[in-house]
Amino acid sequence: MQSKRNVYLKMKSLQEAHEIIESQFSVADILVPEMVPVPEAVGRVLAQPVYAEISAPHFNAAAMDGVAVKAEATFGASEARVKEIRIGHDAVYVNTGHVMPEGTDAVIMIEQVNVIDDERIEIDKPVFPWQNVRKVGEDIVATELLFSQNHVITPYCVGALLTGGIFKAPVKKKPKILIIPTGSELFDWRRQTLDSFKPGQVLESNSFMLGSLIEQYGGAYTRHEMLVDDPATIKRVVAEAVNQDYQMVLVLGGSSAGSEDYAKEVILNLGQVLVHGVTIMPGKPVVIGAVSGKPVFGIPGYPVSAIIAFEQFVRPLLNRMLGQPDQPVQTVAVEPTRKIASKLGVEEFLRVKLGRVGSWVVATPLPRGAGCITSITEADGIIRIPAHIEGLKDNETAAAELLRPPSSVSSRWDPARWQAPLLTAINPPMLPT
Amino acid sequence: MQSKRNVYLKMKSLQEAHEIIESQFSVADILVPEMVPVPEAVGRVLAQPVYAEISAPHFNAAAMDGVAVKAEATFGASEARVKEIRIGHDAVYVNTGHVMPEGTDAVIMIEQVNVIDDERIEIDKPVFPWQNVRKVGEDIVATELLFSQNHVITPYCVGALLTGGIFKAPVKKKPKILIIPTGSELFDWRRQTLDSFKPGQVLESNSFMLGSLIEQYGGAYTRHEMLVDDPATIKRVVAEAVNQDYQMVLVLGGSSAGSEDYAKEVILNLGQVLVHGVTIMPGKPVVIGAVSGKPVFGIPGYPVSAIIAFEQFVRPLLNRMLGQPDQPVQTVAVEPTRKIASKLGVEEFLRVKLGRVGSWVVATPLPRGAGCITSITEADGIIRIPAHIEGLKDNETAAAELLRPPSSVSSRWDPARWQAPLLTAINPPMLPT
Repeated sequence: MQSKRNVYLKMKSLQEAHEIIESQFSVADILVPEMVPVPEAVGRVLAQPVYAEISAPHFNAAAMDGVAVKAEATFGASEARVKEIRIGHDAVYVNTGHVMPEGTDAVIMIEQVNVIDDERIEIDKPVFPWQNVRKVGEDIVATELLFSQNHVITPYCVGALLTGGIFKAPVKKKPKILIIPTGSELFDWRRQTLDSFKPGQVLESNSFMLGSLIEQYGGAYTRHEMLVDDPATIKRVVAEAVNQDYQMVLVLGGSSAGSEDYAKEVILNLGQVLVHGVTIMPGKPVVIGAVSGKPVFGIPGYPVSAIIAFEQFVRPLLNRMLGQPDQPVQTVAVEPTRKIASKLGVEEFLRVKLGRVGSWVVATPLPRGAGCITSITEADGIIRIPAHIEGLKDNETAAAELLRPPSSVSSRWDPARWQAPLLTAINPPMLPT
Repeated sequence: MQSKRNVYLKMKSLQEAHEIIESQFSVADILVPEMVPVPEAVGRVLAQPVYAEISAPHFNAAAMDGVAVKAEATFGASEARVKEIRIGHDAVYVNTGHVMPEGTDAVIMIEQVNVIDDERIEIDKPVFPWQNVRKVGEDIVATELLFSQNHVITPYCVGALLTGGIFKAPVKKKPKILIIPTGSELFDWRRQTLDSFKPGQVLESNSFMLGSLIEQYGGAYTRHEMLVDDPATIKRVVAEAVNQDYQMVLVLGGSSAGSEDYAKEVILNLGQVLVHGVTIMPGKPVVIGAVSGKPVFGIPGYPVSAIIAFEQFVRPLLNRMLGQPDQPVQTVAVEPTRKIASKLGVEEFLRVKLGRVGSWVVATPLPRGAGCITSITEADGIIRIPAHIEGLKDNETAAAELLRPPSSVSSRWDPARWQAPLLTAINPPMLPT
């Protein structure tokens, strides 16, 4: 008997799918702030601007080891007319960081002091007022803006926040995403050994891979236990999830149009299917839906399709929740090593290895199957072949989005052979697409 | 009375200091492996090469929904001469991912099947052997090398490892670093409120900032409680630390040549001082020593000095322990907005803001004091002014090491005004120094 099949709604272009996501979900302010100790806040995003509580320094501080004086008292000193200064009254030995004594406003560096005895020193040039002094607020003035909303806290920022008297920072709660791996073919390697791994079964890996990507982009994920291809169960789990404090739900697998593919049906039953099928490869069989106003995605089961669907549709939403720009990827101009045919009407994400030949970077395509996870772990970059062309000619320049730093691409080649500077080893960068 | 002062040993150039660290510490294999569940191993470094346990797919799998057949049985089919095939015997309905039934070697896509009745289909073109089939090992072949030693595990790698039947990965234990903040002026903001923060005191922040940097570069840190400037106590703590399982010790503060600076004395008493003072600014008063063969650093107390000392001397050691290259920084060519004088014989790390003017990137210097943490949190890049020149002229091209992605530098300007591609908005990259 022939299987029952879904049909794709009218497929959307990548651009259309982006616009639908952009217009349907207002996610800008859905993350509530939480106070996190600053040393633990690295990588987090400020929910509010942060102002300094205290100045740094919060007192006039000696910036050198030496003798603190009233600068006036040194005026007129020269090599020809050395000046004697009495220690104790108008001159006090200080170390770097000491509070400037009352009545002093400059420090003579110890190296420029000629000690006569315990009570007297000689100098042969003057200091000007506030020389070698760190004045109150030189670094930070109390009440000044330290970092604005949506600033990502770096290790350097930890230093600035603590120095400004900020010990807890108001950061956005991490977006919480529920990942639901589905598919009767999935094998639970955490509960069974490989001995019982049968033909037809697949090691469940996408939930952990996408979970890691979510964490990389500042979110948090919960992995639901694996579900078999049973629409009632999947529906119940999705319905429960949107009523909990998840900001997004990813149903992994079952997003295509096969007889056992239930992601679209489940989302349609609970809410609205906005997109089913996008004219990209890999990643075509994605479902983009809304349930109770929350984004619910049907993510294709092939690993590279899952990655592309995640990076194209889920990541921009995550970034918008966190107030972050979806960072343009760094691209380099490359030439394919051979003609690459591609399907008209489909935007292909072609994984390529990059190599330097003379002063040029060439791109060799890796296997194009969406099921090959190694086609992306081995790739140096991705060439996007636009939907309106039938492929790339071998002498045609294309832009490759880099998956690794340019240095690790060129370092594959013997540096002695390639004398050109490291980064120009990669051709002039091009506009990210 | 004049303070008792240390003296600097003969100061070393940056290059000399790097060479001393390189030659004195053999740290390549000191991190023992540990087995970590793959989903938790992102960012970790493989201690050994990893080989696949199982092929992917581990069976011949249908790559399309359709009808599995022996390809031969379809030969000769054409639009002029459609061919009828009986379901059940030599043709079986399959979904994507199903095991190819015994005796079949190709899948006719469901879209190309004309169903006559439950038992018969018609096709108008042939399939070739293995068409629409994912053969055993198409992605991964059991026993093949998945990732070599020193590979850093990314989210994509999580997918490849799990797919290859690797559920725990042998990764290098994180290098453990003890951070000892010292200085009688330090204020413990975790135990006291700002009400009791007195002139002359400093909010202790460097331990947390450097700790975050250590974590960023793949290490782990323990923060010792703050110590006052008492050489006996500091010595006891360092002596204990090198006998524990720390790979490195950082003594924060007291690394200069003042009367209350004990880092050099402590290291000299316990082991060997290799370097005291490097001709860089900020970061000059660094102590590089060895105690029981372990690197022990005296890190300057000013925050920017601490950062430069860390990044120049500690980070390369961390990277070597982890088998990672000390990644060259991405640089861009810039022109200073004005003449910048600098001290001959000192390599300065000048923090700059970058801005686009016409087709050129200009660099404006930020405050140069090592005490200004905001001079680095506000910086877009760092210009290194070499020791052998007395500064930069305002029309002279210099290389700025980027502290932010190029896009966030150029995004400060109205994109409508600047039509040039994003990355060429930044001038052609130059060789990292």
